Amino acid sequence: MTVTGELFLGSSRLATADSFLATNPATGATLQPTFSSAGSAEVERACVLAAGAADAFRNSGSEQRAQFLEAIGARILALGDALLERAQAESGLPLARLSGERARTVGQLRLFADELRKGEWSRLRIDPALPDRKPAARADLRLRKMAIGPVAVFGASNFPLAFSVAGGDTAAALAAGCPVIVKGHSSHPGTSELVAQAIAGAASQCGMPEGVFSLLNGNAHALGAALVSNPHIRAVGFTGSRAGGLALLKLANARPEPIPVYAEMSSVNPVLLLPHALAARAEQLGREFVGSLTLGAGQFCTNPGLLLSIAGAALERFIAAAGAAVEQAPPAVMLSSAIHRAYEQGVATLGQQPKVSVVAQAAGPGGTNCGRAALFRSDAATLLGNGAIGREVFGAAAIVVACADEAQLLRVLEGLEGQLTVTLHLDPSDEALAARLLPTLERKAGRLIANAWPTGVEVTHAMVHGGPFPATADGRSTSVGTLAIERFLRPVCYQDFPDGLLPAALRRAATQVGPHRLDGVVHPA
Amino acid sequence: MTVTGELFLGSSRLATADSFLATNPATGATLQPTFSSAGSAEVERACVLAAGAADAFRNSGSEQRAQFLEAIGARILALGDALLERAQAESGLPLARLSGERARTVGQLRLFADELRKGEWSRLRIDPALPDRKPAARADLRLRKMAIGPVAVFGASNFPLAFSVAGGDTAAALAAGCPVIVKGHSSHPGTSELVAQAIAGAASQCGMPEGVFSLLNGNAHALGAALVSNPHIRAVGFTGSRAGGLALLKLANARPEPIPVYAEMSSVNPVLLLPHALAARAEQLGREFVGSLTLGAGQFCTNPGLLLSIAGAALERFIAAAGAAVEQAPPAVMLSSAIHRAYEQGVATLGQQPKVSVVAQAAGPGGTNCGRAALFRSDAATLLGNGAIGREVFGAAAIVVACADEAQLLRVLEGLEGQLTVTLHLDPSDEALAARLLPTLERKAGRLIANAWPTGVEVTHAMVHGGPFPATADGRSTSVGTLAIERFLRPVCYQDFPDGLLPAALRRAATQVGPHRLDGVVHPA
Repeated sequence: MTVTGELFLGSSRLATADSFLATNPATGATLQPTFSSAGSAEVERACVLAAGAADAFRNSGSEQRAQFLEAIGARILALGDALLERAQAESGLPLARLSGERARTVGQLRLFADELRKGEWSRLRIDPALPDRKPAARADLRLRKMAIGPVAVFGASNFPLAFSVAGGDTAAALAAGCPVIVKGHSSHPGTSELVAQAIAGAASQCGMPEGVFSLLNGNAHALGAALVSNPHIRAVGFTGSRAGGLALLKLANARPEPIPVYAEMSSVNPVLLLPHALAARAEQLGREFVGSLTLGAGQFCTNPGLLLSIAGAALERFIAAAGAAVEQAPPAVMLSSAIHRAYEQGVATLGQQPKVSVVAQAAGPGGTNCGRAALFRSDAATLLGNGAIGREVFGAAAIVVACADEAQLLRVLEGLEGQLTVTLHLDPSDEALAARLLPTLERKAGRLIANAWPTGVEVTHAMVHGGPFPATADGRSTSVGTLAIERFLRPVCYQDFPDGLLPAALRRAATQVGPHRLDGVVHPA
Repeated sequence: MTVTGELFLGSSRLATADSFLATNPATGATLQPTFSSAGSAEVERACVLAAGAADAFRNSGSEQRAQFLEAIGARILALGDALLERAQAESGLPLARLSGERARTVGQLRLFADELRKGEWSRLRIDPALPDRKPAARADLRLRKMAIGPVAVFGASNFPLAFSVAGGDTAAALAAGCPVIVKGHSSHPGTSELVAQAIAGAASQCGMPEGVFSLLNGNAHALGAALVSNPHIRAVGFTGSRAGGLALLKLANARPEPIPVYAEMSSVNPVLLLPHALAARAEQLGREFVGSLTLGAGQFCTNPGLLLSIAGAALERFIAAAGAAVEQAPPAVMLSSAIHRAYEQGVATLGQQPKVSVVAQAAGPGGTNCGRAALFRSDAATLLGNGAIGREVFGAAAIVVACADEAQLLRVLEGLEGQLTVTLHLDPSDEALAARLLPTLERKAGRLIANAWPTGVEVTHAMVHGGPFPATADGRSTSVGTLAIERFLRPVCYQDFPDGLLPAALRRAATQVGPHRLDGVVHPA
């Protein structure tokens, strides 16, 4: 497939007069071809197309949409090495990582296809009529969750495949039956276009309604703003910076009709090193931690940026081991010069905070846009008094915070903002302490991890990749795993409807085979 | 039980210097005693108590909370006639209606108790570890939905029992495990206090944590604003006016940490009279419609305020029959002088719109604060050009809008705001037309009704009492029925947790008996 630089407006391609270029972060060189930027006319056109597709797509069969998702996956694989090479050129990420990310992206599409076939996603509920009930008869009530309408998805820079054009939000929204308009990330427009070809091809192959997918590229804030403000858009999925997410949230709330924004924004993913575990294996934990910290140049939403423990000899052993590992960590190309600049600045700012000291920084300099891992240390009193310390520095930077005792550790935990994850390293002898901390931790994060590291997010049914504000804009949801389909659904009840007018899944015959609740009782498939 | 006028701050009672009186809308007379108004200190105290209760209450057992809900119901019944009489004096609603509303309120508490015991509410998902998976092992992942934290509930005036202190939002929030702070409606503070006694007594009887429930009375906007802005509050339930709901939404979005607002605000509940049904029984439909329109002085969220049909002789027969019934409708006391004033003004405003004519108005005058039913008519072109016509007039006022043809009817439907309900009157011969309209209707309302009337909302599993903005602030939810519990939950995933640290419902032994999804497959209880 050729990369043309054109936008996707439904099944049509379009070149505009306004254009931009991508840059290879590893070399600083610009990449060909030029990419068309979408303006307000293209936003409106994509939104009108999506609105036109919404009814038919919402009421398409689960099996049809499952096949559509599988066809997207197959076509992504069929793009072959050209996709990985373009993604590498645009992101600086190693081919092996991108190959794994492609497998995850395709696996995620297949998982949603399977979820559609399992049928639980639409949460069917049936309360049959009770014509003889006194004092009044009960009507026949049938509930399904159905697609909320066209969704705007903002591609993330740090996963050019798995959180971008055909990433988690797109997969969940298409599975739900929502047309998707992707605002492609301007760092990897060629990767976006190749994946968009796969989606557009699959839509055509599977006879999906025109407008079920569009891709708008561009690097102006006005493009995203126009998309979120468009009245046809019914929900927004976003993964990126806190400033970016909050800006979209503000726009969505200012609409005449506000819409949900699922923005994943910022998390330092605290790791608690409990005393017995730390004493037993401080050095091992220190080395493992740096492995997680430096994975993918630290550019993961779940990167461990804050380590908490009780001060003492075991913590010093951990710090020494982690510091040594950080010094050995090879510099790694970051996703863009802007991200690299922000990382360098974040590291400098953190190092300038009073009572924050540098434990170690990886040797430098590396090549163009290479980030060097950095480890800092401080104490709980300093953290509690300085909001700048607990903030995310996107990249391989972390701070170890020593607490005087359990009470101070709990105060630190209570003071935390919402997080994607909290990790506990513990031995059986630490469980009593963990149990005392746990109610606070549950309030703070979407995923709680024991004796592992937060990087690595399994795409499955029980995953939660979400969490209280500001980890995300809406802590009632997840952006990874099959539960993500719920963010793009709303419930509708049909009262006393004749079979012929009911949605297919709710008809009398269909509900004898699919999972549902009958008078509240769970019936499996 | 005596009505003292005091607030409930957890298990403590408090009188404040600032006070107000309730008024009997049927007589205009003030009622004793004086009621204490809560100020910012009381808001803070109630919120701190609720936050203190949140962890223990969230992790209390489903059975414990079920018993708590049942105890509330039993204690409401034990209040006997005193509750109904006070509610009548404060609301002007007939005793028979209030008796039915009490049964609904108690039934709703029992239904949530049953829902807790059924176990599906927490949406357990288990993906067991796959230690031998290649290329990497899978961790053990266990998901539950759990309480979001303290909830502020704003009592509604129109259901002093079922949508007030122990109403649907409170029942759902307590079932979820969320402490509740009720901002009592200032029209029925005595009713609120009596029900609060039932809740506080049940909390004590069942050993619930201190702070699980508080009642704050007062009629200053500042009270509600302070409550919604308090950092301990994690969600808001509201039923009331559009202006009130939007004000709370704005406050919630302006918080440093925004929170969900479930505001039910405004709906005209369109009723479509399809041609064959209308021709077959225009007169019967006209009479039935006025029965629904005038029920409870028209003070239902689901009151049918907009009738849509194709112009013609059958519609004229409907209008004649409905007009005759409206003229005979007895004036009925409205909930307060403010609501009565707003109704009179709404009727006057509607009547003054160009090309809107009065079909009938009930004879008057009635007694103090009595509303007189009013029926108007107009045509689709007028409706499409004048936004004032499709707006809710709270009370027994409705407008019949004649459309020239199906295309114009569809244009009217597309132009509708979000609604709680849409009703279709249809015969089998109308089904083809209904099928063409249905995709639009699904996008517009939370409940679609065939051949009945929208008033009367069953409290059950498959009910949806919600809908797209501005019917509610969040169309992903319902405020009636067991699905309402979801609004007060968020998902949390536990990765590789030892059994001893898992929440009880997710431990290995427990998940062998409760409903859950295992590797995505639904397992009933």
